[in-house]
Amino acid sequence: MLQSKIFSKTLREDPKDEVSTNAKLLERGGFIYKTMAGVYDFLPLGWRVLNKINNIIREEMNAVGGQEIFLTAMQPRERWEKTGRWKLLGEEVMYQFKDRFGHEVGLASTHEEAVTEIATRFIQSYKDLPLAVYQIQTKYRSESRAKSGLIRGREFLMKDLYSFHATTEDLDRYYKLVDESYLKIFKRCGLKTFVTEASGGVFSKDFSHEYQVLSDAGEDKIIFCSQCGFAQNKEISSLDEGGDCSKCGNKLKVGKSIEVGNIFKLGTKFSDAFGLYYTDKEGGKKPVIMASYGIGPGRLMGTIVEIHSDEDGILWPEEVSPFKIHLIALGDKAKNEAENLYKDLLAENIEVLYDNRGDKTPGEKFSDADLLGIPWRVVVSEKTMEKKGVELKKRDEKQAKIITIQELLKIK
Amino acid sequence: MLQSKIFSKTLREDPKDEVSTNAKLLERGGFIYKTMAGVYDFLPLGWRVLNKINNIIREEMNAVGGQEIFLTAMQPRERWEKTGRWKLLGEEVMYQFKDRFGHEVGLASTHEEAVTEIATRFIQSYKDLPLAVYQIQTKYRSESRAKSGLIRGREFLMKDLYSFHATTEDLDRYYKLVDESYLKIFKRCGLKTFVTEASGGVFSKDFSHEYQVLSDAGEDKIIFCSQCGFAQNKEISSLDEGGDCSKCGNKLKVGKSIEVGNIFKLGTKFSDAFGLYYTDKEGGKKPVIMASYGIGPGRLMGTIVEIHSDEDGILWPEEVSPFKIHLIALGDKAKNEAENLYKDLLAENIEVLYDNRGDKTPGEKFSDADLLGIPWRVVVSEKTMEKKGVELKKRDEKQAKIITIQELLKIK
Repeated sequence: MLQSKIFSKTLREDPKDEVSTNAKLLERGGFIYKTMAGVYDFLPLGWRVLNKINNIIREEMNAVGGQEIFLTAMQPRERWEKTGRWKLLGEEVMYQFKDRFGHEVGLASTHEEAVTEIATRFIQSYKDLPLAVYQIQTKYRSESRAKSGLIRGREFLMKDLYSFHATTEDLDRYYKLVDESYLKIFKRCGLKTFVTEASGGVFSKDFSHEYQVLSDAGEDKIIFCSQCGFAQNKEISSLDEGGDCSKCGNKLKVGKSIEVGNIFKLGTKFSDAFGLYYTDKEGGKKPVIMASYGIGPGRLMGTIVEIHSDEDGILWPEEVSPFKIHLIALGDKAKNEAENLYKDLLAENIEVLYDNRGDKTPGEKFSDADLLGIPWRVVVSEKTMEKKGVELKKRDEKQAKIITIQELLKIK
Repeated sequence: MLQSKIFSKTLREDPKDEVSTNAKLLERGGFIYKTMAGVYDFLPLGWRVLNKINNIIREEMNAVGGQEIFLTAMQPRERWEKTGRWKLLGEEVMYQFKDRFGHEVGLASTHEEAVTEIATRFIQSYKDLPLAVYQIQTKYRSESRAKSGLIRGREFLMKDLYSFHATTEDLDRYYKLVDESYLKIFKRCGLKTFVTEASGGVFSKDFSHEYQVLSDAGEDKIIFCSQCGFAQNKEISSLDEGGDCSKCGNKLKVGKSIEVGNIFKLGTKFSDAFGLYYTDKEGGKKPVIMASYGIGPGRLMGTIVEIHSDEDGILWPEEVSPFKIHLIALGDKAKNEAENLYKDLLAENIEVLYDNRGDKTPGEKFSDADLLGIPWRVVVSEKTMEKKGVELKKRDEKQAKIITIQELLKIK
C-alpha cells in the first residue's frame, strides 16, 4: 500500500482526551478514531490489525470444531426475562430502550440467551451433541469507566464461543481443548498470559478461568507464580503476596493485569431457563450442559500495544502487524529503485507499506515508521544504492544493516 | 462439512410468522433464525452464504481503490445536529435513546456524518484527493414494515462506500467506475439489474441511480425498457407504461422490483456541514465533493432467494452457494465409498457438504438437498457403485447422469 494514499495520517501530538497508552499511540498512528468515550472507529491500518487478530481467532476456533454464526445485537426483553438478566444486566451494563412501536429492546452485551433459545430448535437427542458455535460480533456495554482506550469499550467486537454437551465429562474435555486453543491464540498475538482461577459466579462452584496479561494498564489484580504459572484473581484468592506457591513452592507475587479472555462453565442455568433438553440413550430427558468462552479482539489489540510499545511508538508482533515491511524511499534519486523494489515485494506476496511521500524529511519518515511499528524497516537511498543494497532494521533493534535485495526477498 | 454435525437442521414446515419467500426458505433450510421482526440471526449455512457475498463485494471495492474501515453504530447526537439529520432521521428510522450517563445516543442507519467528520482530520490538500473508504457493518433502521425477510431489516449488514473528490469531473469519473463495479457484483451474485434513475433527493438535481431487480417481492416500482435497459423509478418518472423508450424506441414496461444497491452524488452538503475543505493548487479553500454508494449484503441474499428458488427450495448461484457439491450417501453399503469421495473432494479444495446421516430416508435426503439448493448433487449408492460411478445432478436440471469419480474431481 502507498503511504501517500492511506486515508489516515499520523498526528504529531497525543490526543488531548486520552490517558491510556494504547489509545494515544493508536490514535496518533491513525489506526483508530474516537467517536465517543469507549466507542472507537477502525481506520484502514487499524482494521488491518484487527482482521489479523480476528483471523487468528477464527483459525483456532475452527480447529476446535467451532461453527461460525452471526447473531443480532438487538434483543427482545421477553427473551431475557427468562433468565432474569433483563433486570440484572439492565442495572449494570445493558443498553435498553423502547422502539417507536413500543417494544422493549436491549443491545446484547453477551449472547447466552440468544444461542440457547436458538439451540432449542435444533438439539433434541444425545446424537446432536456435542456442538460448538462462535461469532465475532459487536457487543454493547454501558460501562461507567471507559478511559482505557480499546481495553474497555462501550461498543466493541467480541468473539464468543458457546459449547453444548451431554455430560460434564464431555464438557471438561472440550473446556480443556478450548483452553489450549486460547493459549495458542494469545501466543500468536505475542502475549504471555496467566491462566487465572476466578469466580464461577452464579453458575458454578468450580473456578472459571481468565487469561491475564501482566500490565500496569490493567484493571484486574492477580496473585501469580512466575515459575509454574499458577495464578488466581485477587478478588477470590485467599493467598498472600510473598507466600509459597502450593504447586511449586516459589514465592507468589501480585500484579496488575489485563483480562484478555475467559472461559466459563455455565452448567444448566440457561438450558433450564429455555427448556433446552436432550433425550439420552435410555430415552430420558436431560438438560444440556453448556459453557461459554470469550475473547475481545479489540481489547487484545489494545493490550498488544500496551505490552509492545516504547516511547517512540508501537512494536507489532509479526503475525498481527498491518504490514510485514515498511519500505522507505529517501531522496529523488532513490525513487525508481524503491518503486521497483515495492513491485517485487508485492509480486512475492509480501505485505508492504511503501512510504513514497515526497514532502516529508527523512526524520519525519523515520519517526512515523517508529510510531506505526511495522517489524521490518527497509530504507532505499542514494547511500544504500552506492552499497548495492538496502538498509534493513528491525523495529526492536537499534542497529541497521545493509543487505541485498535478493536477501530481502527471502525474509518471508 | 458433515451434515450430521451442522448446528442447524431443516424444518418440515414453513415458519408461521413469515410471509416472504426468502424468509420462509431460508428459515426452513436453517440458514437464518428470526429474533424479532426484521432482525435475523445467521446460522452456519447462512453465514457462509453471506460471507461469500461480502467477499465478492470486498474484492470489487478493493479493485476500485476502496480502503476498508469499520465505523461505530453508536453515534453522539451532537454530530448529527450539524446536518439536521438527528431530528430528520429520528422521526423516520433512527433508533435514539439516552444512555445511563445522560448522553443522547443514536444507532447509525448510514455513516455520512461519521465519515465526513473523520475525513476533516486527514484531508487538507488537493494532494490528499481522491479518496474512497468503505465498510461492511451492521446498520439499524426502525422500519415500520419489516415483513420482507432479509429484504427489509431493522438490523442488517450494509456495505457503504464514500468517495471524496476535488472536482465534479473527478467525482463523475469515479461514479462511473463504481457503477461498473456494482454491475460486476450483481452479476457475480446471479442477478440481472436495471440501473434505474431515481431522485437525487436534497443533495443533487442530478439523478441518483438504483440497481433494481425485477421481482414480485419488491417494494419498488420501475418503468423499464427490456431491450436497452433504460429504467426509471416510478416515483420520479413522467413516462407511461406502453410508451416508447426514448433511447431505443421499444415499448416501456412497468414492474415491481427490489432495490439491491444505490449510488448517490452528495455534492458538498456534508463537507459544508463539517467544514471539510481542501486547499487547491492556487491556495484557494474549497469544499470536498462527495458521493456515497450502498449495497445490503443480507438484502442481496434475500433477493437471490426470491429470484433463484422453486417450490422445492433454493437454487444458489455457484459463487454464493454455501458449498459447491452436496454429497449424499444412500444405504450402508455406500458409506465407505462416499466417505472416501468426501475426503478426495476436500483434498481437491472443493467445498462439499456431506450428507452422512444414517437416520434419514433417501426421500428426506433429496428433499433437504432441494431445499438447501447447492448447485451440484452427487449421490453414492449401491446402484451407482455397480455402474462404477456416482450420480450427478444439477439443482436446476431434472435429469441425473452417471459419471466417474475422476470426472467429478475435475468439475472445478
